Amino acid sequence: MEASMFNDILQKKTKTIERIIRSFLPEEKGYQKTVIEAMNYSVTAGGKRLRPLLMEETFRLFGGKDEDLPLLEPFLAAVEMIHTYSLVHDDLPAMDNDEYRRGKKTTWNVYGQAMGILAGDGLLNFAFETALQALEFCSGTNREYLTTVPAPEYNLQRLTRALVILTKKAGIYGMIGGQTADIEAEQQEGALEPEQLLFIHEHKTASLIQASMMIGAVLAGVADEETVQAVEKCAYDIGIAFQIQDDILDVVGDVEELGKPVGSDALNHKQTYVTIHGLRQAEKDVEVLTDEAIGILESFGGDNDFLKELLLSLIHRRK
Amino acid sequence: MEASMFNDILQKKTKTIERIIRSFLPEEKGYQKTVIEAMNYSVTAGGKRLRPLLMEETFRLFGGKDEDLPLLEPFLAAVEMIHTYSLVHDDLPAMDNDEYRRGKKTTWNVYGQAMGILAGDGLLNFAFETALQALEFCSGTNREYLTTVPAPEYNLQRLTRALVILTKKAGIYGMIGGQTADIEAEQQEGALEPEQLLFIHEHKTASLIQASMMIGAVLAGVADEETVQAVEKCAYDIGIAFQIQDDILDVVGDVEELGKPVGSDALNHKQTYVTIHGLRQAEKDVEVLTDEAIGILESFGGDNDFLKELLLSLIHRRK
Repeated sequence: MEASMFNDILQKKTKTIERIIRSFLPEEKGYQKTVIEAMNYSVTAGGKRLRPLLMEETFRLFGGKDEDLPLLEPFLAAVEMIHTYSLVHDDLPAMDNDEYRRGKKTTWNVYGQAMGILAGDGLLNFAFETALQALEFCSGTNREYLTTVPAPEYNLQRLTRALVILTKKAGIYGMIGGQTADIEAEQQEGALEPEQLLFIHEHKTASLIQASMMIGAVLAGVADEETVQAVEKCAYDIGIAFQIQDDILDVVGDVEELGKPVGSDALNHKQTYVTIHGLRQAEKDVEVLTDEAIGILESFGGDNDFLKELLLSLIHRRK
Repeated sequence: MEASMFNDILQKKTKTIERIIRSFLPEEKGYQKTVIEAMNYSVTAGGKRLRPLLMEETFRLFGGKDEDLPLLEPFLAAVEMIHTYSLVHDDLPAMDNDEYRRGKKTTWNVYGQAMGILAGDGLLNFAFETALQALEFCSGTNREYLTTVPAPEYNLQRLTRALVILTKKAGIYGMIGGQTADIEAEQQEGALEPEQLLFIHEHKTASLIQASMMIGAVLAGVADEETVQAVEKCAYDIGIAFQIQDDILDVVGDVEELGKPVGSDALNHKQTYVTIHGLRQAEKDVEVLTDEAIGILESFGGDNDFLKELLLSLIHRRK
């Protein structure tokens, strides 16, 4: 696929995702208006919408049908809300103390720390409220959402699985677990164990990418454990490669493409994949992981051109 | 019911609830061990277990059966986890800045602020993971949880409703909404509107009590909207009466029963139901709300002796 064509498609798809996410955001009114404003400010502050994009593309790859989009769309919005809440809490003074993100003031920096905490809580909670809309629809408790009701037993299993994946990959066995290990690693005196850094990268970064791709597959109708696990492995490779590339770019990249000063990890005495394994090994590992991810993707068959380009653009982003 | 008999039954029931809650707590292991320790420290730091108690009693009042307990128990634990996370975040320096709660160090005071934020996030997320166990069981995706699988269609509607109630009453249209309005009220210069204070009491306090009683009813099989709404109103009355009584006790109570210094609201220049409506009106309103709650409860029929005593003990607690 040519780069210009890929970019055109990417832009179009991102626009659609953007519209879907915004359609699920809560209305800014009532005595709780401020927290809703802070939530919506955080969600609409930019971002590549990578997780919902991966979810939708994986859904399509496995033959997900248009008529099942009402089951998928709440999850597209929910995973982005969860990603956003994690950034909002991560930016707090008690955590990373970041005043700016993507050139805009962080949520606590606009609305104050208390509202920053509540906006994060609100987004995490609202993500589940949003994802549950798919279940409400499927169980017939909210019949307005669609005019036709698909077979409930079939969808129930898919939706239960999707909800369990989402909550598990976001929680202490997923993203929150990674955040915890990351914070402890920063306070740790000695060198990081390689497995410790891998745990952090896997949980802090790969978990939500895994959730996105697995949910896309499950909601498309993939039911066998083996295929779901292959999707999980593919997403693992992508997440780790993405994160190693991030560490590499901190050493060799330029400011614009990274969005933070080059060498900031070194200045912060942060231990990264590059400081632990060396630049050459890091670059080699990105290649190996990428090849494996693409290999798994191709084993699924189907039209994977765009998805493959998307993964390569993520992992190999340089300039 | 005699006071000593009520206390015996209460103690026994609380013990059972305690055992159920603990059975759902995550194991403290892995690189994310610290956040799990902080979560479990918070949940086991004491408390009356009021919300799960009310849930179970309402479930029993509406004829909930033992065989459906596997659907109920995850929700008993989940609502207590949500209540606990709200306290953990509320105690943070950026919020109420409390160093002690119920005579024990608050979570951030033991584990640090970053871990306090993550433990709260972890508990909220884990509450949903826990509640979803009921759905996993019902959908057949987790068959180990029970040996017999009840009719899925019937349980699906009940469980969907219970999940939606839980998430809605915990979020921006429930508890988080109340927290937001409360924080803004504290920063507000002029006097509070009576509706504003009522909004805070309703959402910060009554919402989770409503969720508890409504979920108990729904999981017992109550399906008609009218009865669920009556339960919601009953719980509203209880929550508001409880909160007004809290404001009254701050003026006339003693330290031991309240767990905080008498008159602390006045010292903090906090506007309460008593400062807005006067002590006499506040006491009168507690009576009216209590009578209404008991009236609704009696309209349901069934064995409500213990539940009635429980409500009276909450609302009329003095010494």
